[in-house]
Amino acid sequence: MRPTDIERFMDLALAEAKNAELLNEVPIGAIVVNNEKTIIGRGFNQTESRCNPVAHAEILAIEDAAKQNRDWRLNNFILFSTIEPCPMCKSAAAEARINRIYYGSENSQMMSNKKECIQTNLRNIDCSKILKKFFKKLR
Amino acid sequence: MRPTDIERFMDLALAEAKNAELLNEVPIGAIVVNNEKTIIGRGFNQTESRCNPVAHAEILAIEDAAKQNRDWRLNNFILFSTIEPCPMCKSAAAEARINRIYYGSENSQMMSNKKECIQTNLRNIDCSKILKKFFKKLR
Repeated sequence: MRPTDIERFMDLALAEAKNAELLNEVPIGAIVVNNEKTIIGRGFNQTESRCNPVAHAEILAIEDAAKQNRDWRLNNFILFSTIEPCPMCKSAAAEARINRIYYGSENSQMMSNKKECIQTNLRNIDCSKILKKFFKKLR
Repeated sequence: MRPTDIERFMDLALAEAKNAELLNEVPIGAIVVNNEKTIIGRGFNQTESRCNPVAHAEILAIEDAAKQNRDWRLNNFILFSTIEPCPMCKSAAAEARINRIYYGSENSQMMSNKKECIQTNLRNIDCSKILKKFFKKLR
């Protein structure tokens, strides 16, 4: 994928994170892109507003993509997330047969094994800034 | 938890698996039990009928429990599943702060680290039989 495409998709994931911010949710956003480089799924973290521990940005984006795709098998689709997905979301991507994840900023809480199919620190400053701002406001 | 309680809850998880079987879904069932030993969440695998790669029995039971509980934090609640939960579902239980999982039959596809908080092979024969029957019919 070209750097300009990656930049564009990360911008859209960040726009999803801003939707979460407006709801006072931890601001994380995600999108799923299909083989034609079309956005087919979107999600932002809504654990509090949906009272659902599973309603992470990436899970919602994957569910949205499966519905749009009319097939839950998202072979070769790409998941973009503003931060490093948690183990649940990484496993959900694997369940959906997504084998490429691009994310903006590393999650310092996680000590995950980096694999070649995962690209990281794509928009590190923007993606970490929105989270830092949120947690600063909380304190 | 007393063995008779475990038996009763595994029976109910098996009843959920039978709901999946009726829909021609991979027959896996799960329930969530709260601190008062009341069933607060139920789910059966519906990946195909919901066109959702995330719609595993355990995920649906956790989502149901969070809704019933009006709080997504399911501290000290217990997840019962007919088979060993996949990594996504184990991580979802952790996200929901469920720290005890009881399951009926081991999943031979998984090489998971057994932890003390996970009890296994509780209803091994019944829980594996329903799955074996399903896959035999497929062939």
